[in-house]
Amino acid sequence: MTVVAARRANRDIDAVLAALRARFGERLTTATSVLEQHGRDESYHTTAPPDAVVYAESTDDVVAVVKLCRDYKMPLIPYGTGTSLEGHVAALEGGICLDVSRMNKVLRVSPDDLDCTVECGVTRKQLNDYLRDTGLFFPIDPGADASLGGMAATRASGTNAVRYGTMRDNVLSLEVVTADGRVVRTARRARKSSAGYDLTRLFVGSEGTLGVITQVTLRLYGIPEAVLAAVCPFPSFTAAVDTVVATIQSGVPIGRVEFVDPFAMRAVNAWGKLDYPIAPTLFFEFHGTKNGVDEQAAIVKELAAAQGGTEFQWAASAEERNKLWHARHNAHYALMAMRPGCRAWPTDVCVPISRLAQCIGETEADLKASPLMSGIVGHVGDGNFHVDFLIDPAKPEEMAEARRLNERMVMRALAMDGTCTGEHGVGYGKMDFLTAEHGEGVALMRTLKQALDPDNIMNPGKVVRV
Amino acid sequence: MTVVAARRANRDIDAVLAALRARFGERLTTATSVLEQHGRDESYHTTAPPDAVVYAESTDDVVAVVKLCRDYKMPLIPYGTGTSLEGHVAALEGGICLDVSRMNKVLRVSPDDLDCTVECGVTRKQLNDYLRDTGLFFPIDPGADASLGGMAATRASGTNAVRYGTMRDNVLSLEVVTADGRVVRTARRARKSSAGYDLTRLFVGSEGTLGVITQVTLRLYGIPEAVLAAVCPFPSFTAAVDTVVATIQSGVPIGRVEFVDPFAMRAVNAWGKLDYPIAPTLFFEFHGTKNGVDEQAAIVKELAAAQGGTEFQWAASAEERNKLWHARHNAHYALMAMRPGCRAWPTDVCVPISRLAQCIGETEADLKASPLMSGIVGHVGDGNFHVDFLIDPAKPEEMAEARRLNERMVMRALAMDGTCTGEHGVGYGKMDFLTAEHGEGVALMRTLKQALDPDNIMNPGKVVRV
Repeated sequence: MTVVAARRANRDIDAVLAALRARFGERLTTATSVLEQHGRDESYHTTAPPDAVVYAESTDDVVAVVKLCRDYKMPLIPYGTGTSLEGHVAALEGGICLDVSRMNKVLRVSPDDLDCTVECGVTRKQLNDYLRDTGLFFPIDPGADASLGGMAATRASGTNAVRYGTMRDNVLSLEVVTADGRVVRTARRARKSSAGYDLTRLFVGSEGTLGVITQVTLRLYGIPEAVLAAVCPFPSFTAAVDTVVATIQSGVPIGRVEFVDPFAMRAVNAWGKLDYPIAPTLFFEFHGTKNGVDEQAAIVKELAAAQGGTEFQWAASAEERNKLWHARHNAHYALMAMRPGCRAWPTDVCVPISRLAQCIGETEADLKASPLMSGIVGHVGDGNFHVDFLIDPAKPEEMAEARRLNERMVMRALAMDGTCTGEHGVGYGKMDFLTAEHGEGVALMRTLKQALDPDNIMNPGKVVRV
Repeated sequence: MTVVAARRANRDIDAVLAALRARFGERLTTATSVLEQHGRDESYHTTAPPDAVVYAESTDDVVAVVKLCRDYKMPLIPYGTGTSLEGHVAALEGGICLDVSRMNKVLRVSPDDLDCTVECGVTRKQLNDYLRDTGLFFPIDPGADASLGGMAATRASGTNAVRYGTMRDNVLSLEVVTADGRVVRTARRARKSSAGYDLTRLFVGSEGTLGVITQVTLRLYGIPEAVLAAVCPFPSFTAAVDTVVATIQSGVPIGRVEFVDPFAMRAVNAWGKLDYPIAPTLFFEFHGTKNGVDEQAAIVKELAAAQGGTEFQWAASAEERNKLWHARHNAHYALMAMRPGCRAWPTDVCVPISRLAQCIGETEADLKASPLMSGIVGHVGDGNFHVDFLIDPAKPEEMAEARRLNERMVMRALAMDGTCTGEHGVGYGKMDFLTAEHGEGVALMRTLKQALDPDNIMNPGKVVRV
């Protein structure tokens, strides 16, 4: 019997379900379809259904479930929208999936302080819709319309991170239920503080393994006075990436700069009925005052022209810009549509910007030499890029090839002093790479995990092995 | 016998000193004057000398000292420049002071990646001197010329934080020696990462209580194309603070905005032989392109004029600007010169910007009604301000009055959802306030401390009680 099976066999799932049913009634379900849906994410990882799903509607609900799981040493997996990519929500040891999607209230917006507090299940689009009339927005935008609790838990970022930072930088404070059922607010609402250990950053990126995030206090930004976007094809990968590197090094405070490879451009065109040139392409966005935006755009145009990128298609109106970014944001889904019925194996790395051209270049050569269908897109201003492998998980040779290419890409990034994941997180898909990246640091992470979750009930089997 | 005395009595200091002497020779000292100097910081806190001071010159040296202290359960207090303000370096239980000021090499600067790695003892001014010809600078500037390891340890900030963030945002990675003598690098050099728990942020702000920071990898910035600074007096506290709040809310990416109260202006004039008007005053700095700076300045001029602030003194040349900021940076020392022979009790809080006017206003009323001499200065763009009480620590009534005023100010800030310290840190001076601020969070901090330093040897008696 494996360790996991032994752990499972020792648990009294019936008692836990009875207790949950007594409190949650219809909000507890063991219907197979619901369990299946909650045991998988948007990637290739095998579905691992929990024993039950319970729908929390309040912090008190979360506390009740956590305390019950604590008493019965039952695994507990927080679930927002299920859009993560490294198996974060897989119930590897069974247990209770805590669905927080109904905790979806915007609790407070303070335009004067440029911040807000939301329940963990509020999604990024829901928040921005809510903010529509305030002149404010929240910039962090992973491809999916993820929950803000989940985005905090995976330290998500997206296209705006080059200008506005990631969830690490934009979470002011969290409410968290710890593994022993305590409710902790990690920080006050001040913009900065030197008051003790940084509990906020301890939980940002902890992927549900240290506690359940129930509320998120976020920084907001004024919608810029002027916004200008553009798409520009380049004669080569190197030309496009070198333009990005030059832009970052020039200090232009660019709002967004995104790379899309020719195959992904083809996918984006087909998916969105667009007709962009099929070439290594950069998507730009400039934020600022009217003059500031013009200044930034002029500098970047010059840097692009030096690399042979001269065919800028500008999008100044909100409608044109939305169309452009809609295309970029849906590259993942567009790529999947290139091979009907496939699953995607999405992976990402991030390297120091000086190594980006080499890292993307060598990765592209790998992909070109492989029979697998794949596309490269990236938040290149951060040194971060993604590969989507389009695979049939039922075919072992395709899985093996994707695994081989992924490993080469990650080890290449690590050799360049980069990270095994810029924004997707570790889940269980990248645990081995975490060790390759952090060495002794993983032992330290394990110490933290054991201190905060001694019975290993919080999303077990993710981030660090215990 | 107190707990501390009992801990002391159980230690074999002679064995530790013998072992240290064998390895470090002349780099170990027990000379009283050196011990005294290492047992105090720049504030009013009582000197608490260590039993010995050892000068480390390498990470290996640090490891050797940490392992010895671990074996003998001997307190170890890291020491950079001794410019902290809440008793951080006081050897409350005796033990070994680890002076890292000789670990002062800049190890690497990468202009392409806008980052660098330094040994922990390099000071901020030393780094900026080193960078002089690169077109880059490091913006974080507490008043003192502190060491970068110490700045990371206290999560320091300064006048540029409103634009560039604090040490939390600008440390990319640390090398740390943990309490059990392991050397851990907390992160790679990528700009962002979702690879596991945020070990970097765990140690930033940990004040030497979780490990010894030996190397710091920092973000750097291009020196802006244009810089423009100005000083402007205002008819009232409220007028000045309201101008700051309006500036932040307008979204102007201001480089610096600093408040100095009339008494501190008098001190600054006297200390620097200047003749600024004696009034609630704002110091501004604008960073950007030539046009961008002019645009920003025009907006802020208008916002200031609406509050009666019209007498801008502009400083465009580097020399004029340096003179202006030199005056502001030395406000702490200038204030101390107003009462010869006094000590300063410096304290700081930080509140959401919408509460800043009320918080400073009520604090000023408190100070005005008190016989104590004191000045208010602040990094008001962050909602952060400081009070310096000028006291004679030998006079209990002065200490009591400073304590009373400090407590009122901190509790006021907490009631406004602010923090008990925006940038000075906790040391042992603000431990009680930490509890008032974090509640259950302090228990979580204690769990972290006990997990990472089970024998409580790393700077014991600071941040959290164990």
